[in-house]
Amino acid sequence: MPRIVRFHELGQPDVLKLEELPLVAPGEAEVRIKVEAIGLNRAEVVFRKGQYIETPTLPSQLGYEAAGIIDSVGTGVTGFKVGDRVSSIPSFSMVDYGVYGESAILPVTAVAHYPDKLSASEGAAIWMQYITAYGALIEYGKMKKDDVVLITAASSSVGLAAIQLTKATGGLAIATTRGADKKSFLLDAGADHVIVTDEENIAERVMEITSGAGANLTFDPVGGPALLDLADAAAKGATIYQYGALSPEPTPFPLFPALVKGLTIRGYTLFEITQSPELCERAREYVFNLLESGDLKPIIDEQRFSLDEIVEAHRFMETNKQKGKIVVTV
Amino acid sequence: MPRIVRFHELGQPDVLKLEELPLVAPGEAEVRIKVEAIGLNRAEVVFRKGQYIETPTLPSQLGYEAAGIIDSVGTGVTGFKVGDRVSSIPSFSMVDYGVYGESAILPVTAVAHYPDKLSASEGAAIWMQYITAYGALIEYGKMKKDDVVLITAASSSVGLAAIQLTKATGGLAIATTRGADKKSFLLDAGADHVIVTDEENIAERVMEITSGAGANLTFDPVGGPALLDLADAAAKGATIYQYGALSPEPTPFPLFPALVKGLTIRGYTLFEITQSPELCERAREYVFNLLESGDLKPIIDEQRFSLDEIVEAHRFMETNKQKGKIVVTV
Repeated sequence: MPRIVRFHELGQPDVLKLEELPLVAPGEAEVRIKVEAIGLNRAEVVFRKGQYIETPTLPSQLGYEAAGIIDSVGTGVTGFKVGDRVSSIPSFSMVDYGVYGESAILPVTAVAHYPDKLSASEGAAIWMQYITAYGALIEYGKMKKDDVVLITAASSSVGLAAIQLTKATGGLAIATTRGADKKSFLLDAGADHVIVTDEENIAERVMEITSGAGANLTFDPVGGPALLDLADAAAKGATIYQYGALSPEPTPFPLFPALVKGLTIRGYTLFEITQSPELCERAREYVFNLLESGDLKPIIDEQRFSLDEIVEAHRFMETNKQKGKIVVTV
Repeated sequence: MPRIVRFHELGQPDVLKLEELPLVAPGEAEVRIKVEAIGLNRAEVVFRKGQYIETPTLPSQLGYEAAGIIDSVGTGVTGFKVGDRVSSIPSFSMVDYGVYGESAILPVTAVAHYPDKLSASEGAAIWMQYITAYGALIEYGKMKKDDVVLITAASSSVGLAAIQLTKATGGLAIATTRGADKKSFLLDAGADHVIVTDEENIAERVMEITSGAGANLTFDPVGGPALLDLADAAAKGATIYQYGALSPEPTPFPLFPALVKGLTIRGYTLFEITQSPELCERAREYVFNLLESGDLKPIIDEQRFSLDEIVEAHRFMETNKQKGKIVVTV
């Protein structure tokens, strides 16, 4: 019987339990994957705590991203067969599906082939990060060459994906991070400038870097009072994509700068892309091609975890010390 | 010497003084207007108090909207001549120009002919209200037939303009007003539904009216905590145009509904339209044609004021009792 991660109560990392559960057959339009690697996301941390945009039904599975080999296909599945090397696209609800485990059932619409040259660990670190950044910056934000893109919490996998997409498009990537310890990492990852927010004022630095013009696109998963700084750092007509709610504090709307500069604040999650067959296919192709060309390359944290160490892996994510994707190998 | 309204200190309506000042000749690319009627705007009230997006240089003139006859043209003016019947488009800064008075200098880019069938009082009640609503709902909002449009503070001139534009486009206009006293007025003005916010919950009523779908476009000059209700009343993928800051309270950003529904909150003023020659010309033509066809018709409050009563006119605006545009005849 495969070992599956579940939690029976909301709470800290140690609510995650590794349980032996019966092997399940895929239903109609589903496939089953023998999991090789799992990519961790902040969404799973807040889901585990009951603070996500969806509430778990206990006991609950969890997990959006895994890479593996298809070992069974349900009825009505086309385009995929047993033995295919795939990874999961987060287009589903964690109330219905979860990939933390040795085996995972997924809707066929939520799996994709990934480039052969990537390892399974890299395969588990593709779709969430690149589609999230792609949707905001490319599909909606229509990022152009020379756009100034302000990327906060930039050491996260999605932040790093946004840096890579910005550089692939020819924009200027300004990354922020709390402490100075991640500055050189972010420069190595492609950021043109890094603002250390514990020491520097975001708006002042952005205006300095851009000679007073400000950032055209901002990509922020934090919210909270810092949104006011992001509005001050924004260019006339800029859009701020708010794709998360990591701040425990309320988020004020920057009304005066919004009026004066005509700012747009856009709440956004990748589900807008992944749950639309047309947008998802466009995103998948865009990302696949840039992975093939090498413009995009998943960055994985040096520290690796096994499935037995899932609690430690979640604890590590909560330290905010990771540099890139945290991957659990199975 | 013409009588001109100025204020030498920020404050309550009685800081407005009627002063005899020398007749000024228009400069290059300017025209001078013999003013027949002045349309009052909330912007002038907050400008007078020093709470506007621009700060007055004292002593300061004020006023965005007037209708009158051109009685002098400066050098380099084309398309307008002495004797032309025009009204002003708010495309200028009140720090530089103001139309409260018997004579007003304006940049030629800020005047427009208006349909002959309209009175001067109606002519002074066109461009601010219709271009403000047009920019948000038509130019940016791409309003379509059957869109559900939620219009707050709907008894204001801009609110009424939004109702008329929505009906001209074939959308459903849901208007809000604080007290029940303006309900029948708003229904007469074309609103399909009126929500009395002192008595009813906005989101509940909008969801009831739309069978749970919510409003596609929201047009709000208030801000403050009510933005949370507007977010709850919004449809998936909706945009809320925030075009003012009337609430004295801070405005919270509705982060969770914004993430879940992919909401856009857009700070907006008509200057984005009026200060772009291309967008302004498109707006002017759109509004002019609908005024000619009768789809748009300025609604003017029954109570009229003379220029000597400018203080009373401002006091009246601050009572929020007006139904439509407050016009001062000169």
